[in-house]
Amino acid sequence: MNPGLKFVRQDILGLEPYKPSKEACSIKLDANESPYDIPQEVKERIWQRLKREKINFYYDPSCDELREELSKYVGVKPVQIFVGSGSDEIISDLLFAFAGPGRDVIIPVPAFSSYEIFATVSGANVIKVPLLLEKQNEAWRWDLDVEGIKKHFKKDEPQMMFLCYPNNPTGDYFSEEKILDLIESFNGIVAVDEAYFEFGRKTFANRLSKYPNVTVIRTFSKIFSMAGLRVGYAIADETIIEQLYKVKLPYNVTLFSQIAAVEILKNLDWVEALRDELVKSRDELKAELDRVPGIIVYPSNTNFFLCEFEKPRDLVYEKLLEKGILTRKLNGEKLKNVLRFCVGSPEQNNVLVDALRQILSE
Amino acid sequence: MNPGLKFVRQDILGLEPYKPSKEACSIKLDANESPYDIPQEVKERIWQRLKREKINFYYDPSCDELREELSKYVGVKPVQIFVGSGSDEIISDLLFAFAGPGRDVIIPVPAFSSYEIFATVSGANVIKVPLLLEKQNEAWRWDLDVEGIKKHFKKDEPQMMFLCYPNNPTGDYFSEEKILDLIESFNGIVAVDEAYFEFGRKTFANRLSKYPNVTVIRTFSKIFSMAGLRVGYAIADETIIEQLYKVKLPYNVTLFSQIAAVEILKNLDWVEALRDELVKSRDELKAELDRVPGIIVYPSNTNFFLCEFEKPRDLVYEKLLEKGILTRKLNGEKLKNVLRFCVGSPEQNNVLVDALRQILSE
Repeated sequence: MNPGLKFVRQDILGLEPYKPSKEACSIKLDANESPYDIPQEVKERIWQRLKREKINFYYDPSCDELREELSKYVGVKPVQIFVGSGSDEIISDLLFAFAGPGRDVIIPVPAFSSYEIFATVSGANVIKVPLLLEKQNEAWRWDLDVEGIKKHFKKDEPQMMFLCYPNNPTGDYFSEEKILDLIESFNGIVAVDEAYFEFGRKTFANRLSKYPNVTVIRTFSKIFSMAGLRVGYAIADETIIEQLYKVKLPYNVTLFSQIAAVEILKNLDWVEALRDELVKSRDELKAELDRVPGIIVYPSNTNFFLCEFEKPRDLVYEKLLEKGILTRKLNGEKLKNVLRFCVGSPEQNNVLVDALRQILSE
Repeated sequence: MNPGLKFVRQDILGLEPYKPSKEACSIKLDANESPYDIPQEVKERIWQRLKREKINFYYDPSCDELREELSKYVGVKPVQIFVGSGSDEIISDLLFAFAGPGRDVIIPVPAFSSYEIFATVSGANVIKVPLLLEKQNEAWRWDLDVEGIKKHFKKDEPQMMFLCYPNNPTGDYFSEEKILDLIESFNGIVAVDEAYFEFGRKTFANRLSKYPNVTVIRTFSKIFSMAGLRVGYAIADETIIEQLYKVKLPYNVTLFSQIAAVEILKNLDWVEALRDELVKSRDELKAELDRVPGIIVYPSNTNFFLCEFEKPRDLVYEKLLEKGILTRKLNGEKLKNVLRFCVGSPEQNNVLVDALRQILSE
């Protein structure tokens, strides 16, 4: 055995490396990405600018130009914005600054996997509280177990809580009154992950003066169609933002990614049109899927759906893959027989519905 | 006060955010960057490839193509290579996997600041052992205090040790026999930071089978002239590499940066010529500086020099800045009256020498 290996942290030794599927496919619906690349003319403008920039120098560690553009988009001051390498870095930086050794972090589950991974890496103790699956207005919905979460509230503990809004992988918002109830009885850091904000447009970013312990997390990987470039941002009170600068990688966002994000923010008409198309496609896809026997489709305010099947989901997954459609198998309590897939182009969505109809009727 | 602020970790609260100088200057010598951008035709090839790639998808989280190219460059197997967002991410990932809460990390100082920052973020205890300043073969050299370091060796502790080879900010290699003595009496992880490898070409990358607890750290930010794109890599035994995948950001290196690094590795002739020019310029600059009264220039096997002055260094720094030349003030024990600056183009080096001669004779 490598003698150095005995020094791997015990809590890290047990972590699974994040190795997303590299399955070949013609329709990629596993990672909640946008089905469209950014317009070629925007790429061209990024390139024109890059030609003038010098790659050999370290680039702006505080992303000043991008924060300026973002402040107009979000409607807060630039000092209330922090930019990172995807929302993953925002999540990990928040945990490094506010969680860490000997501290507790509440995660309502199922949730985005990075919360638990980086809480563990930070050395914090993770408290997972399962969501409730309830019938609300004739539909099954996943919502917060407020009493189950509050049971863990002690004086000054836990130090941090994640709320994914709308929630990944379940797809919809939690009830606003439940969230407000939790925020008002909690004085640690509340990380509200709004990665899918643009698809449903509810936000806590405009309530920071009332709730200064809330940090909103956003990303350029979804509606902005830039998953390959790693840009995410936090919106928070300036006192919280300042702590993130202390724990981040010194130069966390590349020159190219900063330029690209600035350029796409100058093309909000394209983003807006894409948003309208995907929301329309999503609602049409939901209506179609609801007519397919043998599938429960949970409501979505994102660009993806969580679905439960009468048939074994591994079978459905494999049969879809045989047809070139890649979806995501999720693991965890209450996720035994589900798949998650995102909204593609109208053509891709049609192929998906036909495939599911065939597989589930066989 | 923001109620969330009381939950900042005490050890993080005391950290200084990394805010590099944004002083306007015409000659930038503060960050050990390459003075030249990558060739325009390489940029053009990156762009041609980018036009065919889809930015909307997450890109390869394990950097397969780049590791393949790197394995040819380094002469190890692709599974012995791990790519990160600059050497900063390699440093932090190593610390997250092998240091962390309750563990000890040895750092001979002065050293690259990221070691201490991320050791602290990981929750580890930092043991700083000052370098010795000794006269060796007529020149003052900074070298390891082997006995001072060994004093801290206990059974299974410390868990990790950093050796910067050649050392930043002092500029030269530590004695090889001292390093071997330390490695042979230590069975934790030894992180050998070879960010400046190409300028002196000594390495531990070819000794991993003998010393499997050694991890070599490299970067594309120096001789490869890509500081703005954030690419670094680790070379280590496969068992160590596997742990880094567990703690890294899921998609840590952008599409653009992966493509750019692959392309520059296909243009090693340019890199080689740049290396030869910078080494020649460095040696000429050293000879020139040695003739300037009132300055001690420590030997360098990197692209930068650490210098001590008879006059107050803050004065020298300010006077240089007035002439448009940006250098770096370093802080810490034994660094009271020093500046660090890197090798620029021959023209820039001449301007620097003339400026120093004038300032120091005034």
